[in-house]
Amino acid sequence: MPEMDLAALHADPRLTWVEDVLRYADLDINRHVNNSVFSVLCESGRVNLFRTRFGEDETGDGYFVVAKLVIEFKAELHYPGRVRTGTWVRHVGRSSIGLAQVLEGDGGLLAATSEAVCVFMSRATRRPAPLSDTRRRIATELLRPDLPA
Amino acid sequence: MPEMDLAALHADPRLTWVEDVLRYADLDINRHVNNSVFSVLCESGRVNLFRTRFGEDETGDGYFVVAKLVIEFKAELHYPGRVRTGTWVRHVGRSSIGLAQVLEGDGGLLAATSEAVCVFMSRATRRPAPLSDTRRRIATELLRPDLPA
Amino acid sequence: MPEMDLAALHADPRLTWVEDVLRYADLDINRHVNNSVFSVLCESGRVNLFRTRFGEDETGDGYFVVAKLVIEFKAELHYPGRVRTGTWVRHVGRSSIGLAQVLEGDGGLLAATSEAVCVFMSRATRRPAPLSDTRRRIATELLRPDLPA
Amino acid sequence: MPEMDLAALHADPRLTWVEDVLRYADLDINRHVNNSVFSVLCESGRVNLFRTRFGEDETGDGYFVVAKLVIEFKAELHYPGRVRTGTWVRHVGRSSIGLAQVLEGDGGLLAATSEAVCVFMSRATRRPAPLSDTRRRIATELLRPDLPA
Repeated sequence: MPEMDLAALHADPRLTWVEDVLRYADLDINRHVNNSVFSVLCESGRVNLFRTRFGEDETGDGYFVVAKLVIEFKAELHYPGRVRTGTWVRHVGRSSIGLAQVLEGDGGLLAATSEAVCVFMSRATRRPAPLSDTRRRIATELLRPDLPA
Repeated sequence: MPEMDLAALHADPRLTWVEDVLRYADLDINRHVNNSVFSVLCESGRVNLFRTRFGEDETGDGYFVVAKLVIEFKAELHYPGRVRTGTWVRHVGRSSIGLAQVLEGDGGLLAATSEAVCVFMSRATRRPAPLSDTRRRIATELLRPDLPA
Repeated sequence: MPEMDLAALHADPRLTWVEDVLRYADLDINRHVNNSVFSVLCESGRVNLFRTRFGEDETGDGYFVVAKLVIEFKAELHYPGRVRTGTWVRHVGRSSIGLAQVLEGDGGLLAATSEAVCVFMSRATRRPAPLSDTRRRIATELLRPDLPA
Repeated sequence: MPEMDLAALHADPRLTWVEDVLRYADLDINRHVNNSVFSVLCESGRVNLFRTRFGEDETGDGYFVVAKLVIEFKAELHYPGRVRTGTWVRHVGRSSIGLAQVLEGDGGLLAATSEAVCVFMSRATRRPAPLSDTRRRIATELLRPDLPA
């Protein structure tokens, strides 16, 4: 992924942001937030995107599952503190959406970047299914392809 | 709760034991297992008891929820290591069961004792409901009232 | 513990409040926040109290550990949502402090009450040690004894 | 990563295996183990490798941190159950080691594959530092380069 310009990302309406509060229990013996918590924060951002932008809920005809997750750890996170996760669409496939994320700690710290491949699953078959036209339209509106570095 | 004799508890068929493996992510900045993980281990023991002794599963007419949890922390738990949780019935109520637990770390370490009040909820009403005769019979068979200290 | 009047607790300057954000990963198969997360939230409140009111940090001569934790579960917590944890001092002992807590979900929901016995440990000996005069003074200022029900 | 042959991996002495026990609290509302727990299990495998094969502990001159983590989710994990994590070295760099992992659920289920870039940090400088000769020798002994698919 190219270098991240957090100011540009904050100004881009295609991103969806959610804020989490770090917890004492997130820390590990290295006195920083354990790396597995980064996965939890990425999930917060993904779930929030699907809920608020795509309107996904338990009554829909399907749901997104994460098939692949990539996290690049850039800086430590400390307690107490907050993390803002910005999520956008990098790629729209036939039955999947590629997401990208930044995790921003206090003081504008770029803590991590992340990529995820999210596959749409039919609730009826529990198998991958093509994106509906509505989902494809929303994903395309949020699409922010990578810029050249 | 009176002092715990772990050897006597291991010999008592009324107890149900389950073993968990501690994880690096369970540690906190004090280099020991975080206190919130003790709750997770207690839950493992409770769920295992209801599943294996009472045969509770998602097809039943109800489920137990924890209404009150008491944990007394006796010793630190360290990584790597295992924890054996022994669970028994202390009290049988009209629509609730009182459980007691011991958490035993490696080397016969008494890490914690715990008490829990578990209320039976009807799946139909999501409200407390009286224990069925079968549940009451099983609970009574597992009953191990406190001995005088 | 007597019935909790959340409005009275919010108006009482002896309480210390901290707000946490619930996470998707906090949910369990019952579609509500898992009971072990309540322990994590209680810990957030305790750590915040000791850090902000008592000024405890890693440079001090000791630290508080939780010896006993009691949680009474009053209502389910759901995602997305926030929890405000209010913490106060119920009892001041020779080398321990008794805390009480309320966990308040969105809409003024009383999700849980909690009690904790926190023992002061000398960093030098890793054994319980008497509260310093400063700690005793602060604890006494925050003391909010239980009212008759 | 090429397709994984779990039998071949079990027979290969260059892999290091660790077994974890799934917990009720690992489940999410989809009734399977939450994806963030896969990160926790991967970490168990990495920490175990560094501890048992490289002899890393808190007295050493440095430690490994994870700079990049990739998880490919292949199958759901369910409770109760166990997970065996097999870890090996894919690449030896100047100050980093590339690891690969498989997560195997009960019944020989391939639940996930993972890759991680682990950077060696000097304890004195908290900056990346070259691998010592001993670490390089051990990493090279454990090296299992990818086979052509």
